[in-house]
Amino acid sequence: MKHFTKEALLAAGKSYNRNFVNSLSGYKSLNLIGSINEESAETNLAPFSQVFHVGANPPTVGILFRPHSVERHTLENILQNGHFTLNQVSESFYKEAHLCSARWDKSEFEATGLEEEYLNNFKAPFVKESPLKIACLLKDKITLAVNETVLIIASIEEVWVKPQAVEEDGFIDLDQLGTITVSGIDSYHSVNKLDRLPYAKPFKPTEKT
Amino acid sequence: MKHFTKEALLAAGKSYNRNFVNSLSGYKSLNLIGSINEESAETNLAPFSQVFHVGANPPTVGILFRPHSVERHTLENILQNGHFTLNQVSESFYKEAHLCSARWDKSEFEATGLEEEYLNNFKAPFVKESPLKIACLLKDKITLAVNETVLIIASIEEVWVKPQAVEEDGFIDLDQLGTITVSGIDSYHSVNKLDRLPYAKPFKPTEKT
Repeated sequence: MKHFTKEALLAAGKSYNRNFVNSLSGYKSLNLIGSINEESAETNLAPFSQVFHVGANPPTVGILFRPHSVERHTLENILQNGHFTLNQVSESFYKEAHLCSARWDKSEFEATGLEEEYLNNFKAPFVKESPLKIACLLKDKITLAVNETVLIIASIEEVWVKPQAVEEDGFIDLDQLGTITVSGIDSYHSVNKLDRLPYAKPFKPTEKT
Repeated sequence: MKHFTKEALLAAGKSYNRNFVNSLSGYKSLNLIGSINEESAETNLAPFSQVFHVGANPPTVGILFRPHSVERHTLENILQNGHFTLNQVSESFYKEAHLCSARWDKSEFEATGLEEEYLNNFKAPFVKESPLKIACLLKDKITLAVNETVLIIASIEEVWVKPQAVEEDGFIDLDQLGTITVSGIDSYHSVNKLDRLPYAKPFKPTEKT
């Protein structure tokens, strides 16, 4: 095994360290966050790999916003009007999703060709191409003392999903949606299901399939 | 598209809602957290799908602990002595990792056969089978008002990783490690790399490969 100390990573340079540390947690989700500036009516669309489950009852999601990043328009819009959408990224439009991270001087919808969609009068744009879309409302904002990262806590208000992906017990088969996963800061991956495993109990080792 | 409101999800029952909402954020990482109770010297090993990148300088990671969960021994150990390890789960031992979630009355190392390993005198156990291991120190604890979820912020002190997976620019090729991804609460998936994409700039659409 190759061994790295924190000091060695920081000494390896900003770019090396960023690539390395961003890879450490493992595979990440990729969602496009849609938001709108109410004053200018300009829409914004930005890719996020730090969207995570916070709770099921009530349905709650968390998103980490890094300080001083290009994603600041998204955070400003959310803090301004409380509305945003999550749009899961699938293999058919991951390159357009990546392109949303560039510093455009216009809406990323216009810049990338991804199509704006409005559902049930929700006051933020969805991505028409996405197979899983979520309407979210801001509930809390926490600034992490360690590095000024901002954690947004939001309620899940409504969900739209391709019907064939929803199984009888509520599980959503992301394979059916073509959902991708990401690693590091720029690597994209497709996914293949191995197995759903039964609730684990002592003295019943998981059966080999 | 199938449409769900928050109210409809809660009315669908606890199990349906849990499966559904846990699927919404997309694919997640899977790490085993190794910890130790200093008084009893009993080790603990628990699977976590909510480990995420917080910052690269200094290298920092965040972990969400759900309230009243079987993972409480891990949280208690971390709060007691501040030391824990992250061990990325690969395809070769994901069933043993799943089995760590059962309510054992002994160490999960003993129960599942995963091998305890100690590196550089760090005061928490690593998983010998894991191709990517991280020594972490507790830095902060934040309880989320929305549902009493506990967010642990930790520094990354040391990393051990299979050398062939570390690329020249610091990126770690998780494909080389056989790292898996998870979705919902019980679904396991293997991963195939699509592409690393160049830093996105305006007016230079990503080239088709």
